[in-house]
Amino acid sequence: MTHFADRLAAAVQQKRTPLCVGLDPRWESLPVSIRERYPQPASAYEVFCQRVLEIVAPLVAVVKPQVAFFEQQGEAGYAVLGRLLRRAKSLGLLTILDGKRNDIASTATAYAEAAFQQWQVDACTVNPYLGRDAVEPFLSCARGCQAGVFLLVRTSNPGAGLFQDLRVEDGRFVYEHVGAAVASWARENLGACGFGDVGAVVGATYPVELQLLRDALPEVWFLVPGFGAQGGSADDVRPAFREDGLGAVVNSSRGILFPFAPEADDWEQQIEAATHQAIEAMRADRPPVRPR
Amino acid sequence: MTHFADRLAAAVQQKRTPLCVGLDPRWESLPVSIRERYPQPASAYEVFCQRVLEIVAPLVAVVKPQVAFFEQQGEAGYAVLGRLLRRAKSLGLLTILDGKRNDIASTATAYAEAAFQQWQVDACTVNPYLGRDAVEPFLSCARGCQAGVFLLVRTSNPGAGLFQDLRVEDGRFVYEHVGAAVASWARENLGACGFGDVGAVVGATYPVELQLLRDALPEVWFLVPGFGAQGGSADDVRPAFREDGLGAVVNSSRGILFPFAPEADDWEQQIEAATHQAIEAMRADRPPVRPR
Repeated sequence: MTHFADRLAAAVQQKRTPLCVGLDPRWESLPVSIRERYPQPASAYEVFCQRVLEIVAPLVAVVKPQVAFFEQQGEAGYAVLGRLLRRAKSLGLLTILDGKRNDIASTATAYAEAAFQQWQVDACTVNPYLGRDAVEPFLSCARGCQAGVFLLVRTSNPGAGLFQDLRVEDGRFVYEHVGAAVASWARENLGACGFGDVGAVVGATYPVELQLLRDALPEVWFLVPGFGAQGGSADDVRPAFREDGLGAVVNSSRGILFPFAPEADDWEQQIEAATHQAIEAMRADRPPVRPR
Repeated sequence: MTHFADRLAAAVQQKRTPLCVGLDPRWESLPVSIRERYPQPASAYEVFCQRVLEIVAPLVAVVKPQVAFFEQQGEAGYAVLGRLLRRAKSLGLLTILDGKRNDIASTATAYAEAAFQQWQVDACTVNPYLGRDAVEPFLSCARGCQAGVFLLVRTSNPGAGLFQDLRVEDGRFVYEHVGAAVASWARENLGACGFGDVGAVVGATYPVELQLLRDALPEVWFLVPGFGAQGGSADDVRPAFREDGLGAVVNSSRGILFPFAPEADDWEQQIEAATHQAIEAMRADRPPVRPR
């Protein structure tokens, strides 16, 4: 098995786009035809997301299921999430499980084992507030499976700065300290592409911070949420990339999943078109990723 | 339905102990007799935790299931967690769901609805790194059900200080800033007992910080992990309480759940004895909670 960072680089280069499709199913946005046929949300999520996976698999390298929407559907939701992750894998997609889990010691290990051993994802998101010893079980479990961990550094929400922008005595912000820690952990295990297996979540809605962090963390893959529906533009995400076009995957959830009115018959075509559009928007705006 | 803080105060006063029992089932620690009869971990967790609930229900007011150990068992684990939460409620126990969830906007709402509407817990733990607007969906959903939210302020792990102890320009530490925010959110909705519906997680392993936070956050209920197996003593948790003995629930997981060798036949008696012992240790050390 190849190092996570190299797998990600190869996949992004092969598909020639850093676009990541977020699987955030929402009942009220699903096609009416699916809601009528599958009145149980978990079943409707499964049918819808399976189609999304089939549509986007030829176009993008990575998908990011959001655990919350499946957790909301209880045990049935969990079963669906597991099947979707297997399906994504069988379609050749890399998977980033977005759960923002965090805890200490053996409890963190239990979350890590759920992600990397039970669900066999390629990477998961983790909240770093508890410190290195709490992140360690995730790193250790990920490294045992050549997987990766994305730590929240600068989130995409409008109020992200409340604690992340506290200015520390040394003049740096809290999010810069977290970023520096992520960089040092990433350097512990670099792939051939020059990136490590520890990445950073940095919101597209903060292009200034994105540039600052790109410069400060050259070996760190970024997972960039906030593109599209949350307001981040192709121009905003440009600073996330290294000169060769690698270094970031840019997530779009609602913009890809729900570009249609629920009554539309052609929702599948609309998803495909929205995916092409997002890919083109990013291509027009930065040097294309060079195929291998 | 009564305000969360008042429900918690009444329950702690009725049972005359702030002890909270953490449900952190671990396969390798379970009684051999259960492991042999229930080779599926999720089933073994259910049988074991149901017995624990029955044993501790007459003695304590609150239980805290740790989601990670159930998540590790996939959909079967989730089903078991749901049944245990219902059982705890039917036994008159208050439930704090320890998942440390966190996300933004409608994703945070999905987690909050899973906790408060699907599982109907009395409170859940949340990681505050993303800021107020990310905590808001949890508060809003909790307030709709007269439930509570405990935010991580100072965690119990040895490396907690990496980011929590960064000293901000104003001289205060990051965890103090988080604590101050928690206090202001708690003051938005105070119960008759004088405490709000937003609490703070503060580790028993940091008694100095515990005292500092108790003084700074008089209206905030504390959830204190780290007592017992993690090294926090009854003396260490003393500063967590207000003069009348209210203000904190002190969690013990391993110390209560697994005081026995897996081969022991009398594991139920040992759990009961360990519960009594923890209760007595805390009583000897501080003014008893006054019954109503």
